Amino acid sequence: MITVKTIKELRSIIDLQKSNGKTIGFVPTMGFLHQGHLSLMQTSKEKSDFTVVSIFVNPTQFGPKEDLATYPRDLERDQALCDSVGVDLIFAPEVSEMYPEGYSTYVDCEGNITKQLCGASRPSHFKGVTSVVAKLFNIVQPDFAFFGQKDAQQVAVIEKMVRELNFSVKIIPCPIVREEDGLAMSSRNTYLDTEQRKEALVLNRALKEAKKLIENGEREAEILIQRLTQVIETSKSAIIDYIQIVDVRSLESISKIEGEFLIALAVKFGSTRLIDNYRGRVGGQ
Amino acid sequence: MITVKTIKELRSIIDLQKSNGKTIGFVPTMGFLHQGHLSLMQTSKEKSDFTVVSIFVNPTQFGPKEDLATYPRDLERDQALCDSVGVDLIFAPEVSEMYPEGYSTYVDCEGNITKQLCGASRPSHFKGVTSVVAKLFNIVQPDFAFFGQKDAQQVAVIEKMVRELNFSVKIIPCPIVREEDGLAMSSRNTYLDTEQRKEALVLNRALKEAKKLIENGEREAEILIQRLTQVIETSKSAIIDYIQIVDVRSLESISKIEGEFLIALAVKFGSTRLIDNYRGRVGGQ
Repeated sequence: MITVKTIKELRSIIDLQKSNGKTIGFVPTMGFLHQGHLSLMQTSKEKSDFTVVSIFVNPTQFGPKEDLATYPRDLERDQALCDSVGVDLIFAPEVSEMYPEGYSTYVDCEGNITKQLCGASRPSHFKGVTSVVAKLFNIVQPDFAFFGQKDAQQVAVIEKMVRELNFSVKIIPCPIVREEDGLAMSSRNTYLDTEQRKEALVLNRALKEAKKLIENGEREAEILIQRLTQVIETSKSAIIDYIQIVDVRSLESISKIEGEFLIALAVKFGSTRLIDNYRGRVGGQ
Repeated sequence: MITVKTIKELRSIIDLQKSNGKTIGFVPTMGFLHQGHLSLMQTSKEKSDFTVVSIFVNPTQFGPKEDLATYPRDLERDQALCDSVGVDLIFAPEVSEMYPEGYSTYVDCEGNITKQLCGASRPSHFKGVTSVVAKLFNIVQPDFAFFGQKDAQQVAVIEKMVRELNFSVKIIPCPIVREEDGLAMSSRNTYLDTEQRKEALVLNRALKEAKKLIENGEREAEILIQRLTQVIETSKSAIIDYIQIVDVRSLESISKIEGEFLIALAVKFGSTRLIDNYRGRVGGQ
């Protein structure tokens, strides 16, 4: 496994792989890797000949009051983890390599898809995400790119960007990976203190409760959201940002569950904001 | 030569060419081709193995009061012209192929580079240009793309987009092609009546006059702009939109000519807005 810091080095290696007919799998990350990331890399290893992982804490997707400065970083640890699952190449550029002085080109999926859910409290977040992912796709030129379904809105936004800007990469969403007790894995979980860590379990519990209600025939989004809220409010410190049931592609709210749907939520524990979701389907194909 | 209307057809042909090791040259146009476009195609033929021309009147780069509806179109004539210079493939999609329902993803070079010169009177024009060109680059995946230097700001904006979004295409700016009497070729010249057509010659005359002054040692932008204005105002119907002397890369106004510079102007004759420019260099390398 090799780690490169510049676009030029990366490109010469990718060009060589491509000229040998190898397919490229790509896992973009902000580092501080956990089992969720590693599962993306493992899926990439299965589907492609050469797996590239980017480790880049992208400043343009953080709001002015967000945790850019304190976001956890540990490249050596990340390198060891990547190596352990057989990643071929890490791309770990400096900010100045990605955003040289005077930088001002952005890719934006305008409209509701980026304004709702996490977009409501993080107004420029997805513009930062689509811009850096567009850059990374142009740099790495992957055949496949792997994203965790935990960031369900990110997956929907990136799928829209790929479709609408005609990128030739195939996006592979991968299932949420959870701790043994059910908490969805996230680099931000390290911010939680012992009490918050325990209380954060309400998220998965609430989603499982909603799933059960749906299996028993409940179809009204309002009733499901009420129940989700009740469960989450059993935690004293939980502050709900949103709980919504939406169409999986447009992310528009739906009032009745039908076909494919997404239950998405964001909840703060202290200053740590966690997201989780459940994607399901009811009725025929 | 073959004409295709869908992205899917185009991609299968390009993929085949690429897998045979052919380099792809690309000339994006809005059709109603003239000698200027043909010179781009000829340059593409010299530099690349397989030349693709797109013919697409891109609605997102027209403002609400601009000439989208009346913009001249003649695909059969364009096909014959492309054929005459040995183009390999024409991509002529419908609007719905490029912008399906619900489309909302845009690429924008923010800041002065798109706000000045033509951007001042056409506030969303370059966002439309960068978005469609990003799409076309992803669709065609060219090695080289050829743009006319007549649209000097467009060239600077696209070079910035390619640099900042890390597209791997190489942009080749090509010299302005002029009618025998000096008018820069443009599909919009067909809008001019006989009198306007004659008066429009002041543009090239003014630029030549400025060039002469610079050769004689003039370096003050203000004095050069005064002289350009005088010459253009010898036309009774000319209405000056802008005359500016700017840095070739940032397009920021400069007060003194030094190194590489661009004199750019936009002038209306009746309802027809024409642009022209002169790019030069003074002093050492």
